[in-house]
Amino acid sequence: MAKKHILIVPGDGIGQEVTAVGKKVLDKIAARFNHEFTYDEALIGHVAIEATGDPLPAESLEKMRNSDAVLFGAVGHPKYDNDPSAKVRPEQGLLKMRKELGLYANLRPIKLFDELLGASSIKPEILKGADILFFRELTGDIYFGEKGRKNNGDTAYDVAEYSRYEVQRIGRKAFDAARTRRKKLVSVDKANVLESSRLWREEIQKLALEYPDVEVEYQFVDATAMILIKEPTRFDVVVTANLFGDILTDEASQIAGSMGMLASASIGDGTGVYEPIHGSAHDITGKGLANPMASVLSAALLLDISFGLKEESEAIISAIDQVLKKGFRTRDIADKTTDPSMILGTDAIGEEILKLL
Amino acid sequence: MAKKHILIVPGDGIGQEVTAVGKKVLDKIAARFNHEFTYDEALIGHVAIEATGDPLPAESLEKMRNSDAVLFGAVGHPKYDNDPSAKVRPEQGLLKMRKELGLYANLRPIKLFDELLGASSIKPEILKGADILFFRELTGDIYFGEKGRKNNGDTAYDVAEYSRYEVQRIGRKAFDAARTRRKKLVSVDKANVLESSRLWREEIQKLALEYPDVEVEYQFVDATAMILIKEPTRFDVVVTANLFGDILTDEASQIAGSMGMLASASIGDGTGVYEPIHGSAHDITGKGLANPMASVLSAALLLDISFGLKEESEAIISAIDQVLKKGFRTRDIADKTTDPSMILGTDAIGEEILKLL
Ligand SMILES: CC(C)[C@H](C(=O)O)[C@@H](O)C(=O)O
Ligand SMILES: CC(C)[C@H](C(=O)O)[C@@H](O)C(=O)O
Repeated sequence: MAKKHILIVPGDGIGQEVTAVGKKVLDKIAARFNHEFTYDEALIGHVAIEATGDPLPAESLEKMRNSDAVLFGAVGHPKYDNDPSAKVRPEQGLLKMRKELGLYANLRPIKLFDELLGASSIKPEILKGADILFFRELTGDIYFGEKGRKNNGDTAYDVAEYSRYEVQRIGRKAFDAARTRRKKLVSVDKANVLESSRLWREEIQKLALEYPDVEVEYQFVDATAMILIKEPTRFDVVVTANLFGDILTDEASQIAGSMGMLASASIGDGTGVYEPIHGSAHDITGKGLANPMASVLSAALLLDISFGLKEESEAIISAIDQVLKKGFRTRDIADKTTDPSMILGTDAIGEEILKLL
Repeated sequence: MAKKHILIVPGDGIGQEVTAVGKKVLDKIAARFNHEFTYDEALIGHVAIEATGDPLPAESLEKMRNSDAVLFGAVGHPKYDNDPSAKVRPEQGLLKMRKELGLYANLRPIKLFDELLGASSIKPEILKGADILFFRELTGDIYFGEKGRKNNGDTAYDVAEYSRYEVQRIGRKAFDAARTRRKKLVSVDKANVLESSRLWREEIQKLALEYPDVEVEYQFVDATAMILIKEPTRFDVVVTANLFGDILTDEASQIAGSMGMLASASIGDGTGVYEPIHGSAHDITGKGLANPMASVLSAALLLDISFGLKEESEAIISAIDQVLKKGFRTRDIADKTTDPSMILGTDAIGEEILKLL
């Protein structure tokens, strides 16, 4: 029996709706496997700005530090997107959380549920067998370097930066994971142009000497963006910098049929944070249409990685698999062949998952 | 009758093989339409380093400046890719050429030939009707900002930078093009994180006021990477920064079935440069396997954009269309249904194109 304290941080938009389902699933797991999970909630993003003026209030950060794991929703609001000069922005809360909690490794497993082979825009025969684990570096790069304006505001700049240590620690996590999988690692950079990529490649090359059993391939990010779609089965573990990882994992979501199916784990020095890779999606917020499965799968990752509860984690994945096999879908993963009566909203598909746990 | 001087710059790897076909096609066009094209050649990239120690010898640059247009191949060599500490690199030649010639706008039309609807890894029903024109900024961003090492070589950095003027001039080209097409422009940035993207968005917003007839959408680069695969028909004209454009256009090549079918035009203050978007591809160099159609289509863009020879340009595109309709393929665009005897090498498919001109 595990006793754990879980912080729910729904954030903005559909973050609220999907984490509500994720939390119910955690509750059900606790009951079934006889664990004791306690919960608290905290604010981040636009909702935190509205309530306190701060996208990551000190109280939220404190609660994160004092919990055993965080189930996270999403941040963002169209209001700021269309106002490039806004000084306080929801995303600052997310980035500060990553930095303050030392969440330097973002794991994004990309794997298609059999039933969704037809839901992707990519041909089924290309997707079959695709199973990729991304390691995106999450606390460095152009996200956290100096940025600003100069020449009387006429020029804007952002500095991309990596230290050897930063590359080593994410690289090591990726090599370790490759060892437990198919022993293939692709390191993605733009070393033909960027100095930070050249340092990245140097460090991965050094690490490779320590992992002679892992086959390493170096790719330029433009080539990877192409090969991911052309031949997704070529990849096992992929390791890359913060910005490249942001772009490539969103692209790779199409391999899994929909963004609504993808969870991620951000880990590092302290509390782990688990979240869907989709955003706040204000266009469908409050309509009960959002696919909660990425949040439910985030809960599964949380149980596995932060609590070491493998069986519990697998029970969740299997419940989702069964729900899909029964033919239930949310809008985003339905296709022409889906019986319209099987297309459910956020809560209804959540109930189907809960029934199977 | 046009009198023009064309510089052929094959560069590295398959650049040599494919530009040879591109040049033959230009020759044939000159004969058929009664133009006078004269030619010269110049070195760049690895071959230039080997011959002179310099990836862009002054003589090559001089020749470029004095020609009416440049037909370019590719640069790059695996030797440097695996040696992140190499000081002289083939790509420096390419970047210097872009900067010195003021080639700030890179146009990449992405359009599928009907016959290749099956050659892509993306489903035909998703691709049908896709027709995108990318404007990639080519002389700014993290490609040309300050870069180096600090903290005793322990940290590497690259500065991404945009001035208002740089965004305006590429933005204007994109808006102008949208006006002649379906009047839809997507501007891609990462304004939720990057200061240079916020300035980018500010300038595009200002330009939008001058083009009320063009519908503008702002997307974050991670979302674009996803939507390109999910719903490619949503795009008409896309404008973006140098690095994002590099990644997104390679990804988008899958919409056209293969990279081997995509040409690009780099234009700006002086001589225009026309080149395939594929690279030097040393794995197939010298084997006569490369698809020369991207180089031939680059020649078509050259005639259209630099010389204003629309009919000649269309004759080339139509010849390629007919070659494909006859069932001829190169390896990269063949699929399971292709009769093996119809899969031709570089020169043989070049001959088929020439026959139809
Ligand atoms: C919201 C945004 C700042 C964030 C990022 O770019 O990291 C998001 O896209 C993600 O991938 O978690
Ligand atoms: C070779 C490389 C430097 C170049 C780039 O990144 O611009 C290439 O990928 C391209 O797109 O022309």
